[in-house]
Order: sequence, then structure tokens, then C-alpha cells
Amino acid sequence: RLQSVPSRLCIRACSTNDSLQPQCPSLAFSGANSSTRGWRVMGTLLGLGAVLAYHDHRCRAAEKSSRIYTREEVKSHSSLETRIWVTLGCEVFDVTEFVDLHPGGPSKLMLAAGGPLEPFWALYAVHDQAHVREILAQYKVGELSSEDKAPSTLKTSDPYADDPVRHPALKVNSQRPFNAEPPPELLTENYITPNPIFFTRNHLPVPNLEPETYRLHVVGPPGCQSLSLSLDDLYQFPKHEVTVTLQCAGNRRSEMTQFKEVKGLEWNAGAISTARWAGARLCDVLAKAGHQLRETEAHVCFEGLDSDPTGTAYGASIPLARAMDPEAEVLLAYEMNGQPLPRDHGFPVRVVVPGVVGARHVKWLGKVSVEPEESYSHWQRRDYKGFSPSVDWDTVDFDSAPSIQELPVQSAITEPKDGETVQSGEVTIKGYAWSGGGRAVVRVDVSLDGGLTWQVAELNGEEQRPRKAWAWRLWQLQAPVPAGKKELNIVCKAVDDSYNVQPDSVAPIWNLRGVLSNAWHRVHVRVTP
Amino acid sequence: RLQSVPSRLCIRACSTNDSLQPQCPSLAFSGANSSTRGWRVMGTLLGLGAVLAYHDHRCRAAEKSSRIYTREEVKSHSSLETRIWVTLGCEVFDVTEFVDLHPGGPSKLMLAAGGPLEPFWALYAVHDQAHVREILAQYKVGELSSEDKAPSTLKTSDPYADDPVRHPALKVNSQRPFNAEPPPELLTENYITPNPIFFTRNHLPVPNLEPETYRLHVVGPPGCQSLSLSLDDLYQFPKHEVTVTLQCAGNRRSEMTQFKEVKGLEWNAGAISTARWAGARLCDVLAKAGHQLRETEAHVCFEGLDSDPTGTAYGASIPLARAMDPEAEVLLAYEMNGQPLPRDHGFPVRVVVPGVVGARHVKWLGKVSVEPEESYSHWQRRDYKGFSPSVDWDTVDFDSAPSIQELPVQSAITEPKDGETVQSGEVTIKGYAWSGGGRAVVRVDVSLDGGLTWQVAELNGEEQRPRKAWAWRLWQLQAPVPAGKKELNIVCKAVDDSYNVQPDSVAPIWNLRGVLSNAWHRVHVRVTP
Repeated sequence: RLQSVPSRLCIRACSTNDSLQPQCPSLAFSGANSSTRGWRVMGTLLGLGAVLAYHDHRCRAAEKSSRIYTREEVKSHSSLETRIWVTLGCEVFDVTEFVDLHPGGPSKLMLAAGGPLEPFWALYAVHDQAHVREILAQYKVGELSSEDKAPSTLKTSDPYADDPVRHPALKVNSQRPFNAEPPPELLTENYITPNPIFFTRNHLPVPNLEPETYRLHVVGPPGCQSLSLSLDDLYQFPKHEVTVTLQCAGNRRSEMTQFKEVKGLEWNAGAISTARWAGARLCDVLAKAGHQLRETEAHVCFEGLDSDPTGTAYGASIPLARAMDPEAEVLLAYEMNGQPLPRDHGFPVRVVVPGVVGARHVKWLGKVSVEPEESYSHWQRRDYKGFSPSVDWDTVDFDSAPSIQELPVQSAITEPKDGETVQSGEVTIKGYAWSGGGRAVVRVDVSLDGGLTWQVAELNGEEQRPRKAWAWRLWQLQAPVPAGKKELNIVCKAVDDSYNVQPDSVAPIWNLRGVLSNAWHRVHVRVTP
Repeated sequence: RLQSVPSRLCIRACSTNDSLQPQCPSLAFSGANSSTRGWRVMGTLLGLGAVLAYHDHRCRAAEKSSRIYTREEVKSHSSLETRIWVTLGCEVFDVTEFVDLHPGGPSKLMLAAGGPLEPFWALYAVHDQAHVREILAQYKVGELSSEDKAPSTLKTSDPYADDPVRHPALKVNSQRPFNAEPPPELLTENYITPNPIFFTRNHLPVPNLEPETYRLHVVGPPGCQSLSLSLDDLYQFPKHEVTVTLQCAGNRRSEMTQFKEVKGLEWNAGAISTARWAGARLCDVLAKAGHQLRETEAHVCFEGLDSDPTGTAYGASIPLARAMDPEAEVLLAYEMNGQPLPRDHGFPVRVVVPGVVGARHVKWLGKVSVEPEESYSHWQRRDYKGFSPSVDWDTVDFDSAPSIQELPVQSAITEPKDGETVQSGEVTIKGYAWSGGGRAVVRVDVSLDGGLTWQVAELNGEEQRPRKAWAWRLWQLQAPVPAGKKELNIVCKAVDDSYNVQPDSVAPIWNLRGVLSNAWHRVHVRVTP
């Protein structure tokens, strides 16, 4: 794990390529701001989407593009001293000048130095786009010799080939890594989301772990031994069950994109689901390892067993105070709705942090440690934070904002769907509502006229406990369609028991990563005459 | 204390007359909806403002108004059997038919049966208005005999006569009971609000308590003795100090009123202040009395030593879980900014519940008990709750909403003031921001163009502790005035560490009591050319 955090956001950005929809058409270079020092490309390449100024680049490709090289020759160009060469297909590129400009950071590009790009492009599908190939073309220095043209089978194998088979009902936002949500018409059909359609948010390929050999490494406090827990060891802790709604920070991002482009997966309102989780309480496991609550602020860091080609694991952290509080019910879960965790949801063990953003519910959990600082993971420090609408990728200071933990109050309409036609007479409106931090939803207001007048919806689903309202409420309103109306602008907004409300509109909460999208949810429908 | 709660809100409403600005011109009868059974008056008389239908009333005043009665005769009419008479000045009224229609409830009116109204009108100044006299006039049955015209000195004495002298800078919203806020230009001059200008929200006359004889009654659990604690006894508990911002649920109510009339004191943005409080922790006192956290939900009920003419004390409650949590830092405070509590702020002891609405910080604390249910106090059950904008006084069901405890995220601009003229060049904007439940304010966005574009303000004041952000942040932004602008629509909005935000506009959070007014704060200023 990195022990210091680079101040430039781009350095470790490559590991979030996956948070980007690979087919996203919005990824485009813009501008060609001429200057005396050459040309610049203002690029927004990545999931993190840094807008980078490309300085002082001179294309020397044309003069060299006809030369022939062997793989051995390419391999000898793997350092800045010998220059950095890579191959794609049968073409050879000298990307030395691009290393510092790589939106994913120089270190990620250096992994491919002297060899083929394919294994890395396979992992981060964002690369496989026309404009990326255009950039690369400028660096072409020649072609591989005919005997070297066949790529290594091993290196180009698909790291996602072993991902599990998914339910066809899921709406896929990204295949590699796999990110998908249930369609709205299924989302609120059940209070407990069936496992096969529970929204899936993977950052990397799904590890294929053997339950017999699986071990969870729990680092002990100074002077104490660490624990290495098998699944059977975990089963020895008291089994704790709790119904928890998980929500991705990017849920409803597509509404932000409609206002102004953001970087991230195009989630609709389905990046939220509810399950009955069972497992050992984290506080029990930490206590067993010898940890206690501390006077000073501390954090419990989690590492997944999913990792990128550099071996960097997915990671995140939560405050020790929450981890050690039995009332917070943080779980090391091994069951989801009475079944072993499905592979997509962290088999054999994941963290479940009730009331907290999905990104902290680390899947395929490999390691737990208590640290004086938050996790140094990219996803803790350089992602999953909120910013003012005025902040762009040139001005963002990730250290200035707290990592998202508890989420704000949220609600959405799942029926009818936007653009649908409804019968005159009476309309049935359904949806979900939830708030972070164990705050219960106390009311959902629904409007048929864009927010001018409101009606109170009926709350269904499980009544939540005070301070432990970890799961959503489903809600419903049956309302007469006002006579003569040809269309309805249906809006919902929820209130939680701290009387926090959802903001009216998207623009004032817009942020460059498109997280925390919780403005009033709006659905426009036509009425049959 | 009442052991059951009447389902009609009007029954105990009289005790909140005081939450109404006495001079409020909006209190008027409207409509005279004729029917075959007589006339109705749709009235909004009270702080609670119930709209009541006045049925079947027949005015029989005219025929009797010339008769002369002694005080003895009036006194004999003090039950429904003998009819209910009252006097005001030298006039005698038979209000039997009005008893059930009294917006404060029959029981409150019955207190005056057979005697003068003055002592009660003195306490609840809302009565002393032309339209109330008009109603009364319809019930006139005669006049007092000349020897009985002088009112009893005792009974008409002013219950507020013993209230303390207040600082002239306070903006008074109500003299009786006393409710006042510091002016915006003083509010954020100091991080700690000086005691003399700390906002004051009294529901009743200020008790004048002797520190030597003061006792706090702490009811023990079943089978245990109760405690009767002197001030010296309280001083024996470990002294705990904490800086806490108090905010009235009605802060910024005047902005709701601008959208649509509400019932309550016309607070501007100054019903919020910050002090350094010191006292015994409630959890320590409860533990001393033998209380423990329980498996089932329970509540700590507080009673003040301020009371209305029926002897009903001000009361409120908080969940036992909060009271017993040392981290929640609930205090029985006897010091405010290093001084004994001022009388207006609860001398000698008040509750301080960090992160929670002011209404639960019971002043002049007389009694603490642990109960299975929330306090049956009017202020816990029939006030200080939030409702949908669609709910009016005809449809409100107070049991349907939770009592306000933690407050939502809030911010306001204190400089410049609305309507002010600012210099072109640069403008300095100042204000405060706070959130309930110990959630820290992480950002304040400021707009000069009504919310189209935003700038991030600088946060000043004490950095708050994680999960214990009990006190506000002051903030400031110095921004160039865009050239050519003749006016600025300045807006602020805050974000807390659960990333809850303030709603854009007032109308969708409007509620009949005008509480929880936390929409973006807006100030319109002109720019000198």
C-alpha cells in the first residue's frame, strides 16, 4: 500500500478506469489550444477524468513508422534511459514522451514498458477507443517483425474471463469491471432484493476464492499477534443478522450527467438494493484481535482480494468508533439472504457497514487493520468525495473534502417510468426512500404537478428501529389524475428523522464525479385521453 | 402531568399561546360561512392556530347586556350546570357556549370560570386583540355593580413583572413570554455568543429560583429511591464542559411566513447562538440514580419549574440512548460561558442536548425521569414537529410525525443585510453554518447570482470533533462584485459530513408551524455605481 499520497490526482488514477462506462461517448478530447511551445490536448480521458495539459509534445512518428523491430528489441526499451516502447497488435510505439501525460499516471503506463498493451487494455476497457488509438498513432515508430506478430497468449488473456455469469435482467453499465443495476420495475417489487438482481458494483475482476483456503488477516494492535481467520473461525463468533440497504455513491448519476458531464458509470436509480446480511460483528472480531476504542481518532482499514495488475487491492476504511460500536452493527458478512455470498457480492466474506456508502462495504475481504489515518486507497482518498459545483478537474483538491461515509436522504420513483403513458382516472406511484447513518425515513411527499402541490405517500416495508434505520422504506401513492391533464410531472422527495430533506434540483449539487445525486426524483408521463 | 394525550390538538393548546407574537396582525377571523344552523367562525386564534369550526352558536348577548351583577353573583356561575360567567373590566359575559370552542381548549377557559379574565390574558397576551374582544362582546350579559368594578390587585398582577431586564440590542419578537434574538450584525461578531445577547426563547414567565433552596428531583428506577439534588450535590459530579450551538426549531420562520402564513413567533435568522456550557453529565446523574440503558426504547423526560396558571410545567424528552451515551455529552448545565446561568437561560440548571433542537434543552430544570414513552408535554407531542406542505390545521395529525430532535443542516448570511447597499469592487459576505446530530459542516457555497454559480466560503471558528460537531462554523467570502452589476442576489447553502444539503426553496418545506426553515438563505443587495 502506498505510504504517502501524491498531491496530483492523476498519479493513481488508472486504477479507477473501471469506474467509467467503457462505451461512454462523452470521452473526447476537446480544444487544440495553439501556443508557441507546441500544441496541447485538453483531455478528459479517464474515470477520474483529469483534464490534463499536454505540453511540449513533438510528434516524431511519421519518420520512423516504417521500421521493423523484434519483440526482444522492444523489450530492451523499458526505461526512461533506453526510452519506453510498447506494442499494440503488430505496431510498435515509443511512448516516452507520453509517460508523464498518461491520465492514469506514469506508474501505470510503466507496467507495460517493453511489452504489449493488450493485457492492460483488457483490464481497463476505457483505452479501447478511437481517440486513444489516435493519440497512440502519433508515437508509432515501426512494426513488429513478422515472426513476432503473434501476441503472447498468456499476456492477452482476459482478466475478466473468470467473472461469474449474471442475471439477464440486470441493466449493465459496464461489463469490465462488471457494474449493473436492477431495472426499476423489479427494484421495488420485493422489500428484500433477490440476490441475482442485487445491484453490482465491481472495481476489478471478481476473484475466485476457495472457501477451504480462504483466510482473513486481522492485524493486531502493537505487541499483539495478528489473527488469520478461516471461514470456520469466523463462524465461531456470534452470528449477527441485520437487514441493510446498500447504495452506491453514484446512484442516479445519470441525472447529473443530463445537467453537465461528469466522470463515472451512468447509474440510473437502481444502484441501491436491500438484503438480509449475516456474519460476525466487526467489533467482536476486533476485540478478539485485542483492539479497543482509542482516545484519538483511528480508522479500520479494509483490503479486498481483488487487485489490479500492480497488485494494488481495492481498499477503504471507516472510523474505529463506528467499527467498535456494537449498536452500529458493522458485519463481516458471509451470508446474503440466507445464502453464502454470491461471488459478485464478495464471496466468501465482505464488510457490511449499515448506513454508510457502498464503497466502504469491501468485498472479498482479505485484510483488516486499525490505523491512525484513513485508508490510503485511491477509493478512499481520491474518489468518493463531494465537491462544490464550481470545482472542476483543474481546481479539485481531494484533501479538502471528507470521504463519503454516511449518505444523505434519498428517494426515487420506480413506477411509472419516465416517458410512460398512464391511464386517466387514477395513477399508482411507487418508489423507495432511504437515509444514511441509521436515520429513518419519516415521510415521502409526492407531487403530480412538478412540485407545486404535494401528497403524502404511504410508507411500506419494515418499520425501522430508532437510530438503526439501516434499510429502505418502500412507498406508494394512489392518486386521482386531475381531470383534463395530458401529462404529469411526478416528483418525490423524502424526509428523514433529522428532518433533512432532498434538494429541489440537480445543478446546485452537481459535482465532477457525479456522486451524491439526491435531488427530487422526477418522472414525466403522458396521460391517455 | 397528563397521562393520556387527547387526540384533538386544541385541548392543551392554550399553553402555547406564548409561542405567538402577541402583536401578530395575521391573527384574524376569516369567513362567515352561513348555514341553517347558525353561523360559523373559522378562527385561527392561537399560537397553535387551530382552525376551528364554531357551531350552533346563538348570540343572546344583546337582551341581557344592561343588567347589573355583583362579583359574588358572577362567582356562582362557575360550572356548566350554573353556566360559565367571566368578567373583563366592568363587563360580565356568559361564555358557556364558547367553552367548547375555546381554541386553547375548554380546560384552560374553565380556569377563569366565575372570575376575571385579566390574570389569564396577562399571561397569554394573544387574547388582548380587537377580534377577541368582538367575540367576547357577543356573550355580554351585563356589567359589574359599581362597588365591584375595581379588579382584584392580586389577580391582575403581571406574571411577567419579575422577568429579568434584557439587553437593549436584542430584537424582541414577543415580550410576554420573552422571545428575542440578537441582530445579525452582532450574531457572528463572536464565535461564542455573549450571554446578554444569546437568543432567548421562553414559553412562560421566568421563575425566580433561590440557589440555596433549589432541588433537582431525579426519579429513580422502580424499587430505587429518587434523588433530590441541591446545586452543591450537582457540583460533586465531574464537571464537563462543551461548546454547543443552540437553535430554535423556528429559526428563520419569517421566511416561511413570506411564502404563506404560519403560526409562531416571527424569528429571523437569529434564533441560534453558541455558548460554552459546563455542568454535570446527564449520564452520570442518571447512573447515580440507578438508571441503566434498557433493551427497549425509553425516554428521559424533563420538567421545568416554569409553569402556566394550571401548574403545567414546560416539559420535553429525549431518547434514553442519547441521555446515557457519554459521547453525546448531554449536560445538566449550571454555567454558561464561565458564569452561572443567566435567569433567562435557565438559572440555576438547564439541560443542554448537543446537536438537538433547542426545545429539548429544558430550562429551570425541576425534574428528570425515565419513562417508556416520550414526554406527554404539549411541546413534545403537539408542537415542534414537521409536516408536509399539504397539511393544514384541519388535517394535521400530530401523532403521525416524530418530535424534532436532531436538526437538519442550516446556514445563513449575516452580512450584508437584505436591502443593504454595498460598494462596487469587492463584497465581504459572512454568516454561520451548523448541522444537528454532531454532523460537522464541511462546506459552505455562496452565490452572488441567485444560485447559478457558486464559490466556496472560508470556514472559521473552532474545528469540530468527528461525530461531536456540536457548535457552528462561522464563514466568510470576499468576492469581487462582477463589473456592471447593479444588484446581487446573494445565496448561501451548507453541506454537512453526511453530505446532507439545504433545500433550494422554502415552499416545498413550508409547514403549518413554520419550523425547520432551512432553505438556501437569500439576501438581495444593491451595488453603488
